[in-house]
Amino acid sequence: MKSFKPYCIGAKRSLGDINPADTYFKLKNKQAELQRLEELAVELDGLQNILYAEHQRKVLLVLQGLDTSGKDGTIRWVFSRTSPLGVRVAAFKAPSEIEKARDFLWRCHMVVPGTGELAVWNRSHYEDVLVPVVEGWIDAAETQRRYAHINNFERLLVETGTTVIKCMLHISKEEQKKRLQDRLDDPDKHWKFSIGDLHTRSQWDDYQRAYAAMLQATSTSHAPWYVIPADNKRHRNLMIAQLLNSRLRAMKLQMPSADPALKDVVID
Amino acid sequence: MKSFKPYCIGAKRSLGDINPADTYFKLKNKQAELQRLEELAVELDGLQNILYAEHQRKVLLVLQGLDTSGKDGTIRWVFSRTSPLGVRVAAFKAPSEIEKARDFLWRCHMVVPGTGELAVWNRSHYEDVLVPVVEGWIDAAETQRRYAHINNFERLLVETGTTVIKCMLHISKEEQKKRLQDRLDDPDKHWKFSIGDLHTRSQWDDYQRAYAAMLQATSTSHAPWYVIPADNKRHRNLMIAQLLNSRLRAMKLQMPSADPALKDVVID
Repeated sequence: MKSFKPYCIGAKRSLGDINPADTYFKLKNKQAELQRLEELAVELDGLQNILYAEHQRKVLLVLQGLDTSGKDGTIRWVFSRTSPLGVRVAAFKAPSEIEKARDFLWRCHMVVPGTGELAVWNRSHYEDVLVPVVEGWIDAAETQRRYAHINNFERLLVETGTTVIKCMLHISKEEQKKRLQDRLDDPDKHWKFSIGDLHTRSQWDDYQRAYAAMLQATSTSHAPWYVIPADNKRHRNLMIAQLLNSRLRAMKLQMPSADPALKDVVID
Repeated sequence: MKSFKPYCIGAKRSLGDINPADTYFKLKNKQAELQRLEELAVELDGLQNILYAEHQRKVLLVLQGLDTSGKDGTIRWVFSRTSPLGVRVAAFKAPSEIEKARDFLWRCHMVVPGTGELAVWNRSHYEDVLVPVVEGWIDAAETQRRYAHINNFERLLVETGTTVIKCMLHISKEEQKKRLQDRLDDPDKHWKFSIGDLHTRSQWDDYQRAYAAMLQATSTSHAPWYVIPADNKRHRNLMIAQLLNSRLRAMKLQMPSADPALKDVVID
């Protein structure tokens, strides 16, 4: 299996080192890729089923990325074969009044995965060190404090049995233009287009800087960041599916063993 | 399409009229049934996608039934092709201290579907008019009050845009015996076996009576109860998938129309 290391943020690797158009996990043709995706989706269903049965540990997949980077599409493809029984998606939009009245991790803590669950966060607590930074709502000192709160929060999750997998879906400015245009041109995609996306797009460089700083500050040994080249949608799906499955395989999930009392049970 | 009417509880039809071994929705052979289930699962994915895009209405599927009646299996099969993006499963177990400290509808209200969502309740508020009735924790007057609270709560949901579909998975005592035995015999199913299930089984007739009374009292025109003959697993899946899809089709879901402002948008 190919290594994910070249895409893991750390002391020697930052966002700028990774090309959104990379296709390192590509296979020989479209058909081979679709087949592999299907195999990975079926395997994930099996792994998730054991996670659910085992009922001991938890998995959290965090998906971050700019508009059109493919968060919804990733969920649709990677989880195309998984039962909704043990998979929960939480989407984080602009915070509500109730959420704003509390610390920024409160709404995230409410939806952490329980034992046996796999939670997918469609955007996350990282929004709070991106939008406010770019908009100038918080200063550098507050940003640093938030990084620290995030790292501590993730340490809590990891030390209490959660495997945390963080993916930043990385697209180029050109690719985003094509995707936004596509949403405008296709009536079935109009609902996904928001005028607000253009405002965010106009701050492209600021967001790249905010993402780069955030990734560097919060890619920890307990919860590292992976940057997913996402200009090619199938490559994005293949890479995330492989990363997720490899982490689940490494958990050595086991069907729980039988209660010894069961062997004497007679059903009338 | 076959009518669901013979399985809808009302003035002229009660639980006792429906045979758990019925296979009214059966097709000519296993292969035809598996193919139809696959078609229905793919159709459901499409319908749910429009529900999500439309972002106006909500759907609630309630699954009730005794142990081994197939609630988990139904979810696994019927939603085998649906993205977890807009489908949320809530499982109701014995209430926690926090839940017991509040009225019995509180924990249900917390997880009603939001606009664009399809929620599946794996057990539900109906547990509170079954277990306490059989165990003698509440008297007839309290049971009647709870029926009324339930009907009022469901009216609130329906009048605020939720389509409520309630299915009782109906199995025979013999079939339950086989399934419990199967859980004992198959190491991969041990985790599903609970000694407590035998206690519930020993009260079989009481539960049938409690279910019959509950169905009669809470099958309303806004939220009718369907009894699903569930001794045959594929029949159960086929019937629920058809019922659910037919209700979603009847909603005449539409992709939202474009904001007129979009036609002047230029993406830089």
